[in-house]
Amino acid sequence: MRIVVDAMGGDHAPREIVKGAALAAAEYDIHVILVGDQTLIYQELKKLKDYPKEKISVIHAEEAITMDDLPSVAVRRKRKSSIHEGLKLVKKGEGRAFFSAGNTGAVMACAKLILRPLEGVDRPAIGAVLPNAKGHSVILDIGANVDCKPLHYLQFAIMGSAYAKFVFDKENPTVGLLSIGEEDLKGNESTKNAFNILKESPIINFIGNVEGKELYKGKSDVIVCDGFAGNIALKVSESAAWYIGKLLKEELTKNFIRKIGAFLLKPAFKALKKRADYTEYGGAPLLGVNGVCIIGHGSSNANAVKNGIRVAYELAEKRINLYIERNIQDSLKRLKVDKVESFWNNIKDKFKKITSE
Amino acid sequence: MRIVVDAMGGDHAPREIVKGAALAAAEYDIHVILVGDQTLIYQELKKLKDYPKEKISVIHAEEAITMDDLPSVAVRRKRKSSIHEGLKLVKKGEGRAFFSAGNTGAVMACAKLILRPLEGVDRPAIGAVLPNAKGHSVILDIGANVDCKPLHYLQFAIMGSAYAKFVFDKENPTVGLLSIGEEDLKGNESTKNAFNILKESPIINFIGNVEGKELYKGKSDVIVCDGFAGNIALKVSESAAWYIGKLLKEELTKNFIRKIGAFLLKPAFKALKKRADYTEYGGAPLLGVNGVCIIGHGSSNANAVKNGIRVAYELAEKRINLYIERNIQDSLKRLKVDKVESFWNNIKDKFKKITSE
Repeated sequence: MRIVVDAMGGDHAPREIVKGAALAAAEYDIHVILVGDQTLIYQELKKLKDYPKEKISVIHAEEAITMDDLPSVAVRRKRKSSIHEGLKLVKKGEGRAFFSAGNTGAVMACAKLILRPLEGVDRPAIGAVLPNAKGHSVILDIGANVDCKPLHYLQFAIMGSAYAKFVFDKENPTVGLLSIGEEDLKGNESTKNAFNILKESPIINFIGNVEGKELYKGKSDVIVCDGFAGNIALKVSESAAWYIGKLLKEELTKNFIRKIGAFLLKPAFKALKKRADYTEYGGAPLLGVNGVCIIGHGSSNANAVKNGIRVAYELAEKRINLYIERNIQDSLKRLKVDKVESFWNNIKDKFKKITSE
Repeated sequence: MRIVVDAMGGDHAPREIVKGAALAAAEYDIHVILVGDQTLIYQELKKLKDYPKEKISVIHAEEAITMDDLPSVAVRRKRKSSIHEGLKLVKKGEGRAFFSAGNTGAVMACAKLILRPLEGVDRPAIGAVLPNAKGHSVILDIGANVDCKPLHYLQFAIMGSAYAKFVFDKENPTVGLLSIGEEDLKGNESTKNAFNILKESPIINFIGNVEGKELYKGKSDVIVCDGFAGNIALKVSESAAWYIGKLLKEELTKNFIRKIGAFLLKPAFKALKKRADYTEYGGAPLLGVNGVCIIGHGSSNANAVKNGIRVAYELAEKRINLYIERNIQDSLKRLKVDKVESFWNNIKDKFKKITSE
């Protein structure tokens, strides 16, 4: 299987991307197509001592979208970017999945433009798998859509449910809404309106609000939120984990006895770090587009890139989008609605006051 | 000094509140006035074996605002609530500060109604002190104002700066805006507009966006955000810390050697827990009202209540509000503006497009 990788995206591109791609090519049954500035990519490849040359190819892209580029502008002005070129390869069937650790908004805008959204999806969303006390949950959106209308939360809930069914093998995944209080009435204008729509939607298994303090308790299989809140939740978790690790290190080296204790616990800390380390997850899929598109953390190192490419490979092999699309269709059948469009129109009619805002 | 305490607010009220009040009365040079259902309060007091009876008094309030009450409704319909009665005591000068672990929105609405906002403040905000790698920072708002206009962020920045000067003894505290990217262009509609206003305001020392992943890095002394994002950031941190603690416990008990290591590190873990434990902070002040009003965590236990009362005592003693008011006035003088109102009007004129939205 051929996986297309944006060599120019991310804080440590192209170095860590090329390294990660080489690791992935060596480890998995895939061929990696690196897209970007070919001079820079070959420079990086040359630095690697040992990698499967026959499993990596390079496609040149004249431009690169930076983290500073405004997505709405970059998508139109930088049409020869590595993101555009890479997604076009997937569109043409020359690659089965796309991975980028670059500008999230730009990846999403380009994916919408080039791969096109699935039928019935206005806003593709990035879904991340989070570990929790009971197992795992999917949280979406985590950064593709910073400002959302109430109806978008329902689209996220439907896509998230399909994804949770798929990756957790659960029959009827529960859906919670990230908010600031457990009570139905709490939240901001968006989430309060979204709550009303979610509550009335038989197509999902909605259980109510999930507070920030419950994020890692495993209260629901799917957690929906706008991209701003989701991004804050995810990144703050990362920062909190980092800070606790720092405090722990300080405490463990304060005296000799503690140093002995810390030595005995080295394997435990290593295991803990692995369990909490985002680079092990590698990437989050952009759900709701016609094609597999995985978005990596901006600060991805080679290991994170390798894992991101693995996620792309697995989801492409399992045909995640086909599954989501079928899931939406099945739900419509259950609701006795013939077309996706009519389904959304029904909801819009029912919640005219909320959705027109 | 007399401190007024809402005995009915919080998940464990009145039991933990009464216990915490008794602990505070015993430890600090204060007199505590417990406000709420007197039958319930006396029942709880009776259960305590030993407490300074002469340092605690009870004032009856007929009603109690629950966590489920909608603040805007409760503030008008439950005028005899413990929150109303307690704040009235502070207004009349019968208490120097108010503490509640109850419905945050209701405390804020009642405080605005009864204590009144400081001149030039539309939206009082809750400011929490967060530990970080370099020391501490103030984050506001953390839940009083879920939907904010761009101008409110500037008010938060001014109040937060005054508070940071006050508690950290810093001359010109730096201010960051909580957002989803370091780059100026990133954020949602609100934060992008707020960014433009903050950037152009010489009254504060603005350094740009602070990402979620930088929350505990100590990038700025003050972090401004709307109450929804602030609440998510704070509560998710709590959840992440809880989850890491859980994973750690699992890892530390996996075999005999690890158990020995864990035994040797018991004091280190205890110290760590203390450093990361929110109950040690106790409460966060509602900044921008005429009076000291401290809001505790909804799930406050007796220890958290005790610490919250200590915070109320300290801030009342140091006359925090007078300080914030003076700070605003001083800034205006520097800007050669005579009245607070003219200051806001100037900004509104300058950012007409943004602020009219």
